[in-house]
Amino acid sequence: MTLSPQIAAKPRTTIAPMLSVRRGAAAVEFYQRAFGAVVVMLIDDGQGSVVAHLSVDGADFWIADESPPHSNFSPESLGGGTVRMVLTVADPDALYDRAINAGATIVWPVSDQPYGWRVGRLFDPFGHHWEIGKPLAECATNA
Amino acid sequence: MTLSPQIAAKPRTTIAPMLSVRRGAAAVEFYQRAFGAVVVMLIDDGQGSVVAHLSVDGADFWIADESPPHSNFSPESLGGGTVRMVLTVADPDALYDRAINAGATIVWPVSDQPYGWRVGRLFDPFGHHWEIGKPLAECATNA
Repeated sequence: MTLSPQIAAKPRTTIAPMLSVRRGAAAVEFYQRAFGAVVVMLIDDGQGSVVAHLSVDGADFWIADESPPHSNFSPESLGGGTVRMVLTVADPDALYDRAINAGATIVWPVSDQPYGWRVGRLFDPFGHHWEIGKPLAECATNA
Repeated sequence: MTLSPQIAAKPRTTIAPMLSVRRGAAAVEFYQRAFGAVVVMLIDDGQGSVVAHLSVDGADFWIADESPPHSNFSPESLGGGTVRMVLTVADPDALYDRAINAGATIVWPVSDQPYGWRVGRLFDPFGHHWEIGKPLAECATNA
């Protein structure tokens, strides 16, 4: 792993979600197809479990195979999710469609919302929910 | 809500977790004490439910009261969490201690890990797990 001395000395404060999944290797493949994610780092323990650091156009998230003894539960194990991901992008319509075509499921399609966002919600084949949107330009003129 | 025209026109790609909780108002108060979070935006529906946009030193996350009919489940409802938050800060020891003193629970304390991070794990009073850490300086010289 390469890391600049500057980053190691004084890291920027960040919050990145780490999604617990079943079939982690398939999840890594899915997020590449669905969101255009790139793999920053991938650790494969050789026994069917992966931990992966992914990036969507510079926005980081992590994937890890679930481990219930360590309190890391997939949505499939719990029958739902406790955190959803708010993915802000320049063109939410395009990314939403790409994800649906890759196998995600529509919850509600991308549309303008009264709170000033254009956004849609979907869930991926691993049970995680995503809201894909952007602030509406109208907000700027109303500011 | 104020928003610059530049941001509205071409938002930066970001992924922010939205944590489903019970007792959302108490959660907003907790994250301010535990992590020094500031409230960027707070919507209170007047019927006991809040949606809040919080920031820890510029790192964004969201809190929302759970709504199981909308597939938004708190860890208390499901008996566990499906996403944990990786919170990178300059001084993880200090922030970890602050969160424990504010009422979070130790899973494992902050320590140097063989994968090049100094990190600890805790869960908050609402059942969400956080890994609070930073890259070890050693990584820089080993790069």
